[in-house]
Parts: sequence; C-alpha cells; structure tokens
Amino acid sequence: MKTLTRNEIAARLLENDRIFVLMHKSPDGDAIGCAYGLCIALQRLGKCAMPVCSDDIPPKYEYITSKLSVQSFEPSYIVSVDLAATQLLGDKLEQYADKIDLCIDHHGSNTGYAKEGYVDAASGACTQIIAPVIELMGIKIDKDIANAIFTGITTDTGCFKYSNASAVSYRMAADMIDKGADSTYINRLMFDTKSRQRLDIERMALESMEFFADDKIAVVAITNEMMERSGAEDGDTDGIAGIPRQIEGVQIGLTLKEKENGGFKVSARSTGDVNVSDICAVFGGGGHRAAAGCFIHGSLEEVKQKIVNEAVKAVTE
Amino acid sequence: MKTLTRNEIAARLLENDRIFVLMHKSPDGDAIGCAYGLCIALQRLGKCAMPVCSDDIPPKYEYITSKLSVQSFEPSYIVSVDLAATQLLGDKLEQYADKIDLCIDHHGSNTGYAKEGYVDAASGACTQIIAPVIELMGIKIDKDIANAIFTGITTDTGCFKYSNASAVSYRMAADMIDKGADSTYINRLMFDTKSRQRLDIERMALESMEFFADDKIAVVAITNEMMERSGAEDGDTDGIAGIPRQIEGVQIGLTLKEKENGGFKVSARSTGDVNVSDICAVFGGGGHRAAAGCFIHGSLEEVKQKIVNEAVKAVTE
Repeated sequence: MKTLTRNEIAARLLENDRIFVLMHKSPDGDAIGCAYGLCIALQRLGKCAMPVCSDDIPPKYEYITSKLSVQSFEPSYIVSVDLAATQLLGDKLEQYADKIDLCIDHHGSNTGYAKEGYVDAASGACTQIIAPVIELMGIKIDKDIANAIFTGITTDTGCFKYSNASAVSYRMAADMIDKGADSTYINRLMFDTKSRQRLDIERMALESMEFFADDKIAVVAITNEMMERSGAEDGDTDGIAGIPRQIEGVQIGLTLKEKENGGFKVSARSTGDVNVSDICAVFGGGGHRAAAGCFIHGSLEEVKQKIVNEAVKAVTE
Repeated sequence: MKTLTRNEIAARLLENDRIFVLMHKSPDGDAIGCAYGLCIALQRLGKCAMPVCSDDIPPKYEYITSKLSVQSFEPSYIVSVDLAATQLLGDKLEQYADKIDLCIDHHGSNTGYAKEGYVDAASGACTQIIAPVIELMGIKIDKDIANAIFTGITTDTGCFKYSNASAVSYRMAADMIDKGADSTYINRLMFDTKSRQRLDIERMALESMEFFADDKIAVVAITNEMMERSGAEDGDTDGIAGIPRQIEGVQIGLTLKEKENGGFKVSARSTGDVNVSDICAVFGGGGHRAAAGCFIHGSLEEVKQKIVNEAVKAVTE
C-alpha cells in the first residue's frame, strides 16, 4: 500500500465522482461517523457517494444516517474507512476486498490491503483523520458532518475516558461543537441510554459476580439462560466486560459469555498491572495487555475453574 | 457584591500575600480543583495560600492535595470558590460567612455574599474561571495545576456528558492535557472505579426497580436495611438517581432514599419532557426541570404511592 499524505487523499477524492465508502461489519460509531460524514461531505460537492456495509446501521444512529441522500450508482472509486483488514468487511462485501483504491484508517495493525492509503495510529478515532481531509477538500463542516465526526470521537474514546482520548480528540470535539454538533444529545444517547433488556442482563451479571485471590479477581458469567430470561440480545451485553475491573482492588475482571457451541467466550480486563493477553494466550486467545479474550470449551464451572486458575497464577506471581 | 473582571480578580490576588480559599462542605471535584489549583498557583509566587473546608477531602483526590505545601498562617484575604451561598460552608467555617473578600463562582444562584466577586454561570466548571485567572497572574500552569483544573471540568460535566460541557470545556481540557494533566487516570478514577459497597448497593437498587404508567416511570428504592446489608455509606449512592432515567422509554426516574427521620428523600430525574420540579414542589421540594428533589414522610409504600401518583399525573397530562 502506497502511503499518501492527507493532501493527496483530499486530491484523490476530488478527482473521483462515483465513490463507495466501505465500513467494517458490526459498524460502530467511528465507522459510521467516518463513512457517513465523508459521504455527506462528498455529496455537498455534487458527487455520488454512498457508505456500504454488510450489516444494517443500528437505528440509534438515525440522526446521522438520515442526513445522507440515498443514491444508486456504480462506483468508479472504492474507499475504506476505519477498516484494519478486509476480513472485517463481512460476507456481502468480500467482492471488494481486492478492489479498494484508498484506505483511511487509525489501526496500527492495518494490513495494507489497499492500493493507496493513510494510517495514523495516533488518532483516537478515525473521524479525527476524516475531518481535516474534508476541510482540505474545501468543504465546510456543517452541523450534519460535525455530528458524524463528533460521534466517532466520543464513541471510540469511550466518552473521552480511554487513553486514546488525546488533546487533539478534545480540541476537535470542541471544534465540532462550534460547528453545531449536538454533543450532549450524542453522549447521552451513546452512553446514558439502556434498554430494559440491557438493564436486566446487567443486573443478572452483577448478581453472578464472584471474587477470587483476595478479591483481586472478579468473575461475571452471562449464560444463555440469562440471555433468554432477560430477552437481551448480543448487543445488549456490550461493555459489561468492563464492569468487574471497575471495582476497587480488582486487578483482573473476567466476563464469561456462553456461546451456542458448548463453551464460553472469556473477556479479560486488567488495570494494566497484569497482562491478561498472556492469560488468554494459554487458551489460544490474545489481545492487549489490559484487554484480551479467548474461547474455552466446557461447562460454566469447568471454564471458570480453568481461567481463574491462570488468573490466580498471574496475580500471585 | 461588586462585580470584578477577571483581570481585577488577578490583580486582587497579586496584591495579597496571606490567602485562605474557602470551599463548600462535602467538597466535590470542582471545589477541590478550584481551591487546590488556585493555592498551588499562589504558592508558586511565594505567597501563603491554603484551601479551607469544613469536611475532609476524600482520599481519591490525593493526586491533587499532595501537591500543595501545607502552611500555617493567619489570613489577610479570604476568597471563596464554587460557593453559591455561605450556608454551604458548613459549621466550622461559619465564622467566615461575613468576611469573604472575593468570590469566584459559576452558580447562577450565587447570593452575592462577598465584598467583590465574579460569577459566570456559563462556565461548566468553576475551574474554567480559575485557569485563566491563574494565567492572568502570570503563573505558568504546570502539571499539578493542570490536574486540578482538569478534575474540576470533568467532574462537574459528568465526564463531558452533561449539557454544561461546552466547547470551552472541551478546549480547556485539551489545553490542560497539553500542560501535562493525567486525563485518562483522572477520568478512570472519577468515573470507572466503584467500591464493593457501591457495587452491592447499585445491584440492590436495580433489583428494587419498579415500573409504572406504561413503563414511562421507573422507581428505585434504597432503604436503610439495604445500606446496612451492603455496608454502603451515603457517598456510595452518588449517581444512582440517574440510573432509572437511563432506561429507554422512561420519562421520569424516581429514586427513594430512606432517611433516619421516618421518611424518604426523593430524587426525581426526567428526560426533559416532564418538569419534575413541579412534581417535587407538591411535597415542598424543588429543583430544575430535569432534576429535582423533595422529602416525604411515611413508609416506603406510602411514599412510593404519593410520589408515583403525582408522576403518573404528569406523564399522562
């Protein structure tokens, strides 16, 4: 993949008039903010531009998606945003895997699948790259685009709580507010709104919590029975993995989520003192020092014992 | 109270060398950030400056409080920060109520108790006023002061989630990060850390949740028995009042907290569609449209019935 400058990216986009912008499957606020923000901007220039995703966009992003004019056209230029690897395109978009002209991303692990691209791993959100590119194209960032950019920043930084929220993130958020972004509405919608099902599954997860190793390890289990009883769907369990680690004194938080195939997906979180990626690697998984995962076959008790054994070793080392 | 400009405030502080900075009782992150940030800055100029509070500063703020040199002196100039009214000084500080030379505040309800002052209700946090005053005194904002200022902004805006988080708040947060503020550490400490007791009382509160009026009203009860069983203290219930209103479809969230004197403190929160201040006024309470409170004598069932009756009227009107 040939690395371009932001100016060159803006030039490539200006040169092309029928543009598809590909997003990863299970699109999050940053992917949606990038793809819709960029397409809204390109449409302002009279171009044909459409975001493309193998999954439906969750309805809560309607304040962004409704601002785009739906266009039907054959693309002459394929762009990807916030996409680390083409496997993440999902089944429906595999046809584009080898045809991506331009990649705009912020994942250090980007596989370089496109002809040309720009990857800035220092950007907390990928929309932090999209916004200056839009301005380099000479397009004024209006309220609709600002909402899309702000959404990417706040969702990818966990409402400015994660370590990837830099001064640039905060300053760009301020700029987007100046341009009309509904920051309070967006933050409430993304971080302060829960379905009844989410509330119920969260309560059940809290009830299941057990502690080990002098309360340095907290374990939460979410079984299929709990999912059925609460009526929760997979999306409703987002973020629950972060709860056990929030408790004072807990160094490792483990969340066990039952899967259909006779086992549990383990999400491990640490305060950074312990490398949970090492723990998950024992079971063929991996991830980062403070956030990792693996799959373990077996009953809840079996899986719990296996992962807790490894976690106990790690905190007592 | 004579209104001063920020420049005049800086001049007053520069003219005086033995300064007490008064905080409200039950000090929060903004009060602590203001008082310690300002005193650390004044000490940098060789002045005697000490924060004064009727309550102990919670230990989690040690990263701020440990940066101040403890000084013992008689004050020649009394300043208050983030203090809407002198009743909020608490018992130990009543002696200063009539002796406050300078007030720096951001409460629109400020009673004008000081000789001179500056009140900017548009400032999301009072530290947003303190920071420019420090710079107007010619003091460089270093990492220690930046941590204090950032703490005030993020705590008073609910980690940038409340409507008082303006572009100024975000931009000043970015400036403080540039000056060394440990933004990730502070946000995690303030918003992602829970005691076991807090976790337990929150779980019990969720278990107590009831719905009324087609699920438009959600009610949570926290009894003394629950407090004892969880080992929670009053501070552990902070923020629980916001939980019922987070649920999709809920227009009014009511949290009933049992008090020692045979009744319940009711915290009412709305999405803004219903004015909960009116509901609380029926019982002699008050507040804002989206957040209000009152006290109702009686058993849990009596209190619940009374407040729910009024809430049902409000949502069906």
